[in-house]
Amino acid sequence: MIDKLGDFKRDYFCGELTENNIGDEVRLLGWADSVRDHGGVIFINLRDKEGIVQIVIDPSKSPEEAYEKAKRVRSEYVLAVRGRVNRRPAGTENPKLKTGNIEVAVEELRILNTCDILPFPIEDKINVSEETRLKYRYLDVRRPEMMGRLILRHEVYQATREYLAGHGFLEVETPMLTKSTPEGARDFLVPSRLEHGKFYALPQSPQLFKQILMVAGIERYFQIVKCFRDEDLRKDRQPEFTQIDFEMSFVNEEDVIAVSEGLVHYLFKKILGIELKIPFRRMSYEEAINRYGTDKPDLRYGLELKDITQIAKNVDFKVFRSVAESGGLVKGLNIKGGARFSRKEIDELTEYAQKFGAKGMAWIKINEDGSLQSPIVKFFTQEQIEQIKNTMEAENNDLLIFIADTPEITHRVLGFLRKHIAEKMNLIPEGRWEFVWIVDFPLLEWDEEEDRLVALHHPFTSPREEDMDKLDDAINNKELALQFKSRAYDLVLNGEEIAGGSIRIHRPDIQKKIFELIGISEEEAEERFGFLVNALKYGAPPHGGLAFGLDRLVALMAGVDSIREVIAFPKTQKGICPLTGAPDYVREEQLEELGIEVELPEEQS
Amino acid sequence: MIDKLGDFKRDYFCGELTENNIGDEVRLLGWADSVRDHGGVIFINLRDKEGIVQIVIDPSKSPEEAYEKAKRVRSEYVLAVRGRVNRRPAGTENPKLKTGNIEVAVEELRILNTCDILPFPIEDKINVSEETRLKYRYLDVRRPEMMGRLILRHEVYQATREYLAGHGFLEVETPMLTKSTPEGARDFLVPSRLEHGKFYALPQSPQLFKQILMVAGIERYFQIVKCFRDEDLRKDRQPEFTQIDFEMSFVNEEDVIAVSEGLVHYLFKKILGIELKIPFRRMSYEEAINRYGTDKPDLRYGLELKDITQIAKNVDFKVFRSVAESGGLVKGLNIKGGARFSRKEIDELTEYAQKFGAKGMAWIKINEDGSLQSPIVKFFTQEQIEQIKNTMEAENNDLLIFIADTPEITHRVLGFLRKHIAEKMNLIPEGRWEFVWIVDFPLLEWDEEEDRLVALHHPFTSPREEDMDKLDDAINNKELALQFKSRAYDLVLNGEEIAGGSIRIHRPDIQKKIFELIGISEEEAEERFGFLVNALKYGAPPHGGLAFGLDRLVALMAGVDSIREVIAFPKTQKGICPLTGAPDYVREEQLEELGIEVELPEEQS
Repeated sequence: MIDKLGDFKRDYFCGELTENNIGDEVRLLGWADSVRDHGGVIFINLRDKEGIVQIVIDPSKSPEEAYEKAKRVRSEYVLAVRGRVNRRPAGTENPKLKTGNIEVAVEELRILNTCDILPFPIEDKINVSEETRLKYRYLDVRRPEMMGRLILRHEVYQATREYLAGHGFLEVETPMLTKSTPEGARDFLVPSRLEHGKFYALPQSPQLFKQILMVAGIERYFQIVKCFRDEDLRKDRQPEFTQIDFEMSFVNEEDVIAVSEGLVHYLFKKILGIELKIPFRRMSYEEAINRYGTDKPDLRYGLELKDITQIAKNVDFKVFRSVAESGGLVKGLNIKGGARFSRKEIDELTEYAQKFGAKGMAWIKINEDGSLQSPIVKFFTQEQIEQIKNTMEAENNDLLIFIADTPEITHRVLGFLRKHIAEKMNLIPEGRWEFVWIVDFPLLEWDEEEDRLVALHHPFTSPREEDMDKLDDAINNKELALQFKSRAYDLVLNGEEIAGGSIRIHRPDIQKKIFELIGISEEEAEERFGFLVNALKYGAPPHGGLAFGLDRLVALMAGVDSIREVIAFPKTQKGICPLTGAPDYVREEQLEELGIEVELPEEQS
Repeated sequence: MIDKLGDFKRDYFCGELTENNIGDEVRLLGWADSVRDHGGVIFINLRDKEGIVQIVIDPSKSPEEAYEKAKRVRSEYVLAVRGRVNRRPAGTENPKLKTGNIEVAVEELRILNTCDILPFPIEDKINVSEETRLKYRYLDVRRPEMMGRLILRHEVYQATREYLAGHGFLEVETPMLTKSTPEGARDFLVPSRLEHGKFYALPQSPQLFKQILMVAGIERYFQIVKCFRDEDLRKDRQPEFTQIDFEMSFVNEEDVIAVSEGLVHYLFKKILGIELKIPFRRMSYEEAINRYGTDKPDLRYGLELKDITQIAKNVDFKVFRSVAESGGLVKGLNIKGGARFSRKEIDELTEYAQKFGAKGMAWIKINEDGSLQSPIVKFFTQEQIEQIKNTMEAENNDLLIFIADTPEITHRVLGFLRKHIAEKMNLIPEGRWEFVWIVDFPLLEWDEEEDRLVALHHPFTSPREEDMDKLDDAINNKELALQFKSRAYDLVLNGEEIAGGSIRIHRPDIQKKIFELIGISEEEAEERFGFLVNALKYGAPPHGGLAFGLDRLVALMAGVDSIREVIAFPKTQKGICPLTGAPDYVREEQLEELGIEVELPEEQS
């Protein structure tokens, strides 16, 4: 039933054949993309990784054995074909196919494998649940759009290394089995069999190792590397993800930014044929928050946040006034043409705002004739209305919406509303690549829950050189500490953070002061990061670096929303691999060898 | 005390400066490799990743500030230097240094960081324990020989990808968090936080995923990938190691071997400038065992095993005769010039043999005058002695040693003795690269402990096409089953296995029969490998591949014995990272979140 491959070798890939091959005997290998029987003649579209060509088994021309086999062929059978390339009869050409003017008359056919009934067709734009696609990923990847994404990813790998190796960066592998130093995200743990009770951790990033490599004199390091975070998989996160990671010695922000821009420019040019304009623009963290409500602003469209706090201080509308008087912010968005929104649509916006923490949303609709419709204008004087309209750059047909809350909530809610409205109103132009560096981040922020200062990025991020001498004064001065800016920089593309990095602390005394500022005791610092602090004592050069989220970068380049579309074997939002069924139960002996026991919650045990 | 880097930029790397730069003002960055004070003039060898240049701070010529700083400089301080390149005064040139004819007269000196007293000097061939080197790896790597190994490794990465990507292979990342399918080695496990009691496993290799990628129509896949085995770290293993992994569709052994040879040829040529002769020779598993006692023969020297079993059947020496008559083997090695071995040296060989399972070792010394010295010759007739001497190709001054035992033990012991003697007698020539493919492996072997057949490689290895039809007959016929050869091939270089692979099973019916043969029940096969067997049902093409052990390959290319010398951050034989202290205890909350408890043995708890 199943034929042997033996020494059969292809002469061409299916998609490579052209009219120049007419008359040639060729051997091909591939999958039956489709099978049709027209009046006893069997037509098969044979597909391999380079494309498709039609093969024909005509009982009056092909050997009987080949014809008998051809009758058994179904979709996705694996075939070896020997035959002669012919011009297709006039009128039967297929202009949709690159090889649409030719076909191969089969002289020998081997069925190398069969295929069960497919759970979904092998074609683009299928309407199948993601879970089914992931369970049958080996079929899903046969679809040209998925195959194309993996090819794009491959090209990003190669071009990235070309660029970085070509710029003197040394690729060094850092360990996957390392030490747990949780700060921020949760570590995945790996029990040690040789020392029961001890655990390795999978790295959240090679941060400490790449800094160690700078101390080691590598000067320029890079790696495309798997990282791991055991976080709740909201939205579009994966427990394992891939970074383009690099680090440089004797540099400042400009050097790291220049390499990053050079790399992105190279990738877009080489892979997508797009010539990006560099340097990318830069925006301070403060400006990004004020104008866009987020430190990841999408600059493909306007819809900026407008501040009416000063006006709100004098209005009779209590919600506005009390917020404005107590250090909060009253800010709004002007939705151009939004006056046509129904009450239901406005309610939907309000609900959306509440989802992100707003108590409510105020609004003013400016009708086509300039008349106002709003639950709140009755609290405003005519002058205040004019001031608001001026600030909001309002015109007839606009809908103005407002959030009044703490600065954090006002910005966050308006940031999300801005994005939501842009999508709803179709404000986002296609084919735009809006890069922006976000800089001048605060070094520290206040963590209400933990009641302490925490590092906005991570505790190895350097303060500015001019602030080094003020660190001591800030130990018991929260206000001073919150004024420090860090030497961090994030790269945002179309509203997604695609890279982040910083100049690091290279002096052990400064590193200790930062630990002290964020309430990590000397003992704890020694226990968790002692090896880094120790390394800094042995001639650590000034250094800094950056890491790109490769999955996100490739997803953006591929024009897909989810990083799962550019990962060969991703996990679902519950951390499950539908293909293999991981994670799974293991044998009791395996746990015994590791000296661990599973502690199930009471209702389960 | 510590100066700021600010905007300081280097114009040249230290090692780049030449006599062409004489008269130039240059800015340099690096480490104080050495500091000397000659009559008040301070000489510093400044080192960066490209080399060393001497800088001079003469109090009569350099600014006072620079001189005051220079006086503080100690070994491995980090410096920024601005100065003028001068020709060294006649007679002070240093021919050992590439830049030995020039020096830099310092005009500005910045101390960017200090360095504590070094635990060992930054130079090659240091006599320091490996543990200390690993603890201070950031200092160890500054030594030129270590830095050179990491650079070599970097070059192997780049050239490997160049070659494989250039030959149509697509780089695809496979998951690190996957399902436990232990066969052979132990898995490292990662507890799932979202589903208590379930575990991910770190991959022992991407075997199943790369096969799935072939089913997915990728046709040519590769990856340089971390793999994990929780084995006892005998000799030179690491819990995490790196493979060059590739897989191809529609191929037979010759295709995979050709790509492998092409890759190795490319690496040696491009990186070492060595033109290897390909194709490499091939040897059957049986021949390798018979002639060298191992399937990883080192062909840089002779010292082959000789078989005297037939002669032994007739001798009066009972040990030999009983072994020869009961299916065992009596084989020996001829140690040329070994007649000069003392009794103590022969005893040492016997002990070595016993370490690997021999009950004893017989020997015959042939003195310079042709007389024999041996505890066993009294049991042999003159004719038998002549037969033995003939078979052993013995001459005066030789020492013949013999092992009589089961074929397995005889071969294993002589294989190890052969290597041991070659090292002892200095028989291994320098600079030889002896590659050999080992082929015609048995498909299955009998596992005494488990009392069942097991796969010699792994259960996805294909039997030969001509044996496919005999699999059914072998289910209850162990002898027949043991006759099957597999389509596996291992590549051995200088006695080390550097790569292994096979043509895989691509038919689900054959895969099921193999599982049946090795006693994996249908239920167990479904539970452990169901996703692969399922994939094979959907148009799996014939495929095969190979994986190189990258660490071992690089170690051989670097001329070092241990793979730890070519891994940036290796673990000790106890699986410990002396730098970070991993593995380590974790917080109780971390274990609670994972729903696991540590079960310490009673004496510890």
